[in-house]
Amino acid sequence: MDLLRARWRDSDTALCVGLDPDLERMPDIALRGPRPVLEFCCNIVDATADAVCAFKPQVAYFAALGLEADLAELIAYVHARHPRVPVILDAKRGDIGATARLYAREAFVRFGADAVTVSPYLGLESIEPYFDYPERGVIVLCRTSNPDSAWLQNYPEDDPVYLRVARGVAKWNTHGNLMLVAGATYAKDLGRIRSLVGDMPLLVPGVGAQGGDLEAVLRAGLDGNGQGLVINASRAVLYADRSADYGMASDAAARALRDEIRRLQVEIAPHGAVV
Amino acid sequence: MDLLRARWRDSDTALCVGLDPDLERMPDIALRGPRPVLEFCCNIVDATADAVCAFKPQVAYFAALGLEADLAELIAYVHARHPRVPVILDAKRGDIGATARLYAREAFVRFGADAVTVSPYLGLESIEPYFDYPERGVIVLCRTSNPDSAWLQNYPEDDPVYLRVARGVAKWNTHGNLMLVAGATYAKDLGRIRSLVGDMPLLVPGVGAQGGDLEAVLRAGLDGNGQGLVINASRAVLYADRSADYGMASDAAARALRDEIRRLQVEIAPHGAVV
Repeated sequence: MDLLRARWRDSDTALCVGLDPDLERMPDIALRGPRPVLEFCCNIVDATADAVCAFKPQVAYFAALGLEADLAELIAYVHARHPRVPVILDAKRGDIGATARLYAREAFVRFGADAVTVSPYLGLESIEPYFDYPERGVIVLCRTSNPDSAWLQNYPEDDPVYLRVARGVAKWNTHGNLMLVAGATYAKDLGRIRSLVGDMPLLVPGVGAQGGDLEAVLRAGLDGNGQGLVINASRAVLYADRSADYGMASDAAARALRDEIRRLQVEIAPHGAVV
Repeated sequence: MDLLRARWRDSDTALCVGLDPDLERMPDIALRGPRPVLEFCCNIVDATADAVCAFKPQVAYFAALGLEADLAELIAYVHARHPRVPVILDAKRGDIGATARLYAREAFVRFGADAVTVSPYLGLESIEPYFDYPERGVIVLCRTSNPDSAWLQNYPEDDPVYLRVARGVAKWNTHGNLMLVAGATYAKDLGRIRSLVGDMPLLVPGVGAQGGDLEAVLRAGLDGNGQGLVINASRAVLYADRSADYGMASDAAARALRDEIRRLQVEIAPHGAVV
């Protein structure tokens, strides 16, 4: 959390780049080496690091190909080259206590992530084992950005599950290292979450390819300091261009998004906020 | 599903052995070889295969140690040596469509599992990609066995989330390859699930070490044919004995549990059922 807040303050960026390496979308030139996924991700990291407050590799893209070693090396690479940029492992695990303890070990010890996403379906017990790592972040799914999420998360209408999760996580946040996922595609719900959790940082997927409205997100989600958001873009940055200059194109896409967020922050942030 | 039903019919067993290899609980003799986790699990598999309708390896036990290769070999070993025993991969993944597609690939292609557990928190979209493998099973978390599960799953009181999940999954089950997780520790809720899903098989964790009442589970959960349950035990079978004869002890524990289930099935099953 300290890394994240320092990054907001010192680099004035709320953009997170999601590292979802898809062989079918990657530029041809990136496919030629012996470890195309690792090489592509490291190039994106170096190209965009100045513009981001975090990187977010998604485990499934590595696991489906048996590339756990690449994932571990990628995270180590970010730590070594860009030590001020925290790494969020997007894993969305959720299991009973004894098993959650192992998933926490996977995320924090094996992969060395600074934070990890988890699912609340099994309750507090499935989140508690992560508290053994008080210097790492735990980001609980609350209101996800996908179209089908309302079926469970917005049920029942009058006091839906996602608000119950937000309240629970706010209460459990005794170490100050918890966050919530609140999708950009449901800005109104994001605003209701913000009103429940004070200045707890929110991870916001769904801008860019998924179509979330950036201005609506910032109006609903900024905290009293004009901060509090980690706004993720994956495809829109990673696959900005398929030519040999893909790193430059990704850098330009990341800077444009960062600048747009900055502009809106200044416009929207409450009078007297830090921004 | 065919494998499972054949197993119920031909081997008259509803017992599933969960493969949760924990180095701290494993017998000393199992720790001596170069690949203790794989060797221990294969020995348990050979010792207990006759008594089970399925094996259920839990991904986290392998992933925390970087032992994905052992997990893949273990599943291949079950397929080769015990081809009539289906393998359920306990992964509890749940993510947006594009990512769920990768997790399905991880479970079915990379690891070769016959079925996989998934979380419903992100809605139907997070389950649909698994339907591309209609010959594989998808087991959706519904009412889990752990103490904290009620916080989300039994909310709200009058028509709780777990019943919404049960109804949704029953409706989505057009390929006949869906199942639900219903914990043994909440037999009453298990009964309500059964009443909503016809003869859909239920995976039941929580007997043995977690303290679920077997008789209550069978009374609440058997379908009209006196079947329909996959009753999982992990620790009670795996760690029955820490001596060099651990395989024999696990076999005895598995047989005892299988026989107790059989006895109760005969006692409880509806008149005219297949049992």
